Amino acid sequence: MTMGDLLGYPAAFLTTIAFVPQAWKSWKTRDLSGISLPMYALFTLGVALWFGYGIVIGSMPVITANGITLVLASIVLWLKISAR
Amino acid sequence: MTMGDLLGYPAAFLTTIAFVPQAWKSWKTRDLSGISLPMYALFTLGVALWFGYGIVIGSMPVITANGITLVLASIVLWLKISAR
Repeated sequence: MTMGDLLGYPAAFLTTIAFVPQAWKSWKTRDLSGISLPMYALFTLGVALWFGYGIVIGSMPVITANGITLVLASIVLWLKISAR
Repeated sequence: MTMGDLLGYPAAFLTTIAFVPQAWKSWKTRDLSGISLPMYALFTLGVALWFGYGIVIGSMPVITANGITLVLASIVLWLKISAR
Protein backbone atom coordinates (compact mmCIF):
# COMPACT_ATOMS: atom_id res chain seq x y z
CA MET A 1 0.00 0.00 0.00
CA THR A 2 1.46 3.32 -1.09
CA MET A 3 1.46 6.65 0.75
CA GLY A 4 -1.14 7.78 -1.81
CA ASP A 5 -3.42 4.84 -0.97
CA LEU A 6 -3.07 5.60 2.76
CA LEU A 7 -4.40 9.11 2.13
CA GLY A 8 -6.74 8.43 -0.81
CA TYR A 9 -8.89 5.65 0.66
CA PRO A 10 -9.71 7.38 3.97
CA ALA A 11 -10.22 10.63 2.01
CA ALA A 12 -12.80 8.98 -0.28
CA PHE A 13 -14.45 7.26 2.69
CA LEU A 14 -14.76 10.47 4.76
CA THR A 15 -16.04 12.78 1.99
CA THR A 16 -18.64 10.11 1.08
CA ILE A 17 -20.00 9.21 4.55
CA ALA A 18 -19.94 12.90 5.63
CA PHE A 19 -23.30 13.36 3.90
CA VAL A 20 -24.99 10.65 6.03
CA PRO A 21 -25.32 12.83 9.19
CA GLN A 22 -26.43 15.82 7.06
CA ALA A 23 -29.11 13.86 5.17
CA TRP A 24 -30.26 12.28 8.45
CA LYS A 25 -30.42 15.62 10.30
CA SER A 26 -32.26 17.33 7.43
CA TRP A 27 -34.71 14.42 7.14
CA LYS A 28 -35.41 14.22 10.88
CA THR A 29 -35.61 17.94 11.76
CA ARG A 30 -36.84 19.34 8.39
CA ASP A 31 -34.75 22.35 9.40
CA LEU A 32 -33.28 23.41 6.06
CA SER A 33 -33.06 27.15 6.78
CA GLY A 34 -29.25 27.28 6.97
CA ILE A 35 -28.76 25.01 3.95
CA SER A 36 -27.84 26.76 0.69
CA LEU A 37 -30.06 25.74 -2.25
CA PRO A 38 -27.47 26.80 -4.87
CA MET A 39 -24.85 24.70 -3.05
CA TYR A 40 -26.91 21.52 -3.22
CA ALA A 41 -28.07 22.20 -6.78
CA LEU A 42 -24.47 22.69 -8.01
CA PHE A 43 -23.08 19.91 -5.82
CA THR A 44 -25.68 17.29 -6.82
CA LEU A 45 -25.17 18.08 -10.51
CA GLY A 46 -21.39 17.88 -10.02
CA VAL A 47 -21.61 14.53 -8.24
CA ALA A 48 -23.86 13.19 -11.04
CA LEU A 49 -21.13 14.18 -13.53
CA TRP A 50 -18.47 12.49 -11.32
CA PHE A 51 -20.66 9.38 -11.40
CA GLY A 52 -20.77 9.51 -15.21
CA TYR A 53 -17.02 10.15 -15.26
CA GLY A 54 -16.51 6.98 -13.19
CA ILE A 55 -18.54 4.96 -15.70
CA VAL A 56 -16.61 6.39 -18.67
CA ILE A 57 -13.17 5.72 -17.16
CA GLY A 58 -14.36 2.39 -15.66
CA SER A 59 -13.40 3.27 -12.09
CA MET A 60 -15.45 1.35 -9.52
CA PRO A 61 -14.23 3.51 -6.55
CA VAL A 62 -15.36 6.70 -8.36
CA ILE A 63 -18.71 5.09 -9.30
CA THR A 64 -19.33 3.74 -5.76
CA ALA A 65 -18.32 6.86 -3.80
CA ASN A 66 -20.23 9.24 -6.07
CA GLY A 67 -23.24 6.92 -6.36
CA ILE A 68 -23.65 6.99 -2.57
CA THR A 69 -23.04 10.75 -2.36
CA LEU A 70 -25.50 11.33 -5.22
CA VAL A 71 -28.32 9.65 -3.27
CA LEU A 72 -27.51 11.51 -0.02
CA ALA A 73 -27.04 14.95 -1.64
CA SER A 74 -30.26 14.43 -3.65
CA ILE A 75 -32.19 13.82 -0.41
CA VAL A 76 -30.92 17.11 1.08
CA LEU A 77 -31.62 18.97 -2.20
CA TRP A 78 -35.14 17.57 -2.40
CA LEU A 79 -35.87 18.41 1.27
CA LYS A 80 -34.56 21.96 0.71
CA ILE A 81 -36.76 22.44 -2.38
CA SER A 82 -39.80 20.99 -0.51
CA ALA A 83 -39.17 23.23 2.52
CA ARG A 84 -39.38 26.51 0.58
CA MET B 1 -10.57 16.11 -25.32
CA THR B 2 -11.99 12.75 -24.29
CA MET B 3 -15.51 11.91 -23.06
CA GLY B 4 -13.96 11.52 -19.60
CA ASP B 5 -12.49 15.05 -19.73
CA LEU B 6 -15.88 16.44 -20.83
CA LEU B 7 -17.45 15.00 -17.67
CA GLY B 8 -14.51 15.24 -15.26
CA TYR B 9 -13.63 18.93 -15.63
CA PRO B 10 -17.18 20.31 -15.14
CA ALA B 11 -17.64 17.74 -12.32
CA ALA B 12 -14.55 19.02 -10.48
CA PHE B 13 -15.57 22.64 -11.14
CA LEU B 14 -19.15 22.18 -9.84
CA THR B 15 -18.31 20.20 -6.68
CA THR B 16 -15.64 22.80 -5.83
CA ILE B 17 -17.60 26.04 -6.42
CA ALA B 18 -20.75 24.54 -4.80
CA PHE B 19 -19.33 25.47 -1.39
CA VAL B 20 -19.08 29.18 -2.29
CA PRO B 21 -22.84 29.91 -1.88
CA GLN B 22 -22.95 27.78 1.30
CA ALA B 23 -19.96 29.52 2.92
CA TRP B 24 -21.37 32.92 1.86
CA LYS B 25 -24.87 32.18 3.19
CA SER B 26 -23.51 30.81 6.49
CA TRP B 27 -21.19 33.81 6.89
CA LYS B 28 -23.86 36.41 6.07
CA THR B 29 -26.83 34.96 7.97
CA ARG B 30 -24.99 33.12 10.79
CA ASP B 31 -27.89 30.67 10.47
CA LEU B 32 -26.16 27.34 11.05
CA SER B 33 -29.10 25.52 12.67
CA GLY B 34 -29.76 23.15 9.76
CA ILE B 35 -26.06 22.46 9.14
CA SER B 36 -24.76 19.12 10.47
CA LEU B 37 -21.61 19.48 12.59
CA PRO B 38 -20.54 15.83 12.04
CA MET B 39 -20.91 16.35 8.29
CA TYR B 40 -18.56 19.33 8.18
CA ALA B 41 -16.11 17.71 10.63
CA LEU B 42 -15.89 14.51 8.53
CA PHE B 43 -15.98 16.38 5.22
CA THR B 44 -13.27 18.92 6.12
CA LEU B 45 -10.98 16.15 7.38
CA GLY B 46 -11.65 14.14 4.21
CA VAL B 47 -10.90 17.13 1.95
CA ALA B 48 -7.65 17.76 3.88
CA LEU B 49 -6.68 14.13 3.14
CA TRP B 50 -7.61 14.61 -0.55
CA PHE B 51 -5.34 17.67 -0.55
CA GLY B 52 -2.48 15.57 0.88
CA TYR B 53 -3.27 12.85 -1.65
CA GLY B 54 -2.93 15.40 -4.45
CA ILE B 55 0.50 16.44 -3.16
CA VAL B 56 1.68 12.81 -2.88
CA ILE B 57 0.54 11.86 -6.40
CA GLY B 58 1.62 15.26 -7.79
CA SER B 59 -1.81 16.14 -9.23
CA MET B 60 -2.34 19.88 -9.55
CA PRO B 61 -6.13 19.55 -10.29
CA VAL B 62 -6.60 17.48 -7.08
CA ILE B 63 -4.49 19.96 -5.08
CA THR B 64 -6.30 23.03 -6.50
CA ALA B 65 -9.87 21.74 -6.23
CA ASN B 66 -9.41 20.38 -2.71
CA GLY B 67 -7.39 23.40 -1.56
CA ILE B 68 -10.30 25.69 -2.46
CA THR B 69 -12.90 23.33 -0.95
CA LEU B 70 -10.78 22.98 2.21
CA VAL B 71 -10.89 26.75 2.81
CA LEU B 72 -14.66 27.00 2.13
CA ALA B 73 -15.64 23.91 4.17
CA SER B 74 -13.40 25.12 7.04
CA ILE B 75 -15.28 28.44 7.11
CA VAL B 76 -18.65 26.62 7.44
CA LEU B 77 -17.21 24.24 10.08
CA TRP B 78 -15.77 27.15 12.09
CA LEU B 79 -19.04 29.13 11.89
CA LYS B 80 -20.97 26.03 13.01
CA ILE B 81 -18.66 25.46 16.00
CA SER B 82 -18.83 29.18 16.92
CA ALA B 83 -22.63 29.22 16.67
CA ARG B 84 -23.22 26.46 19.23
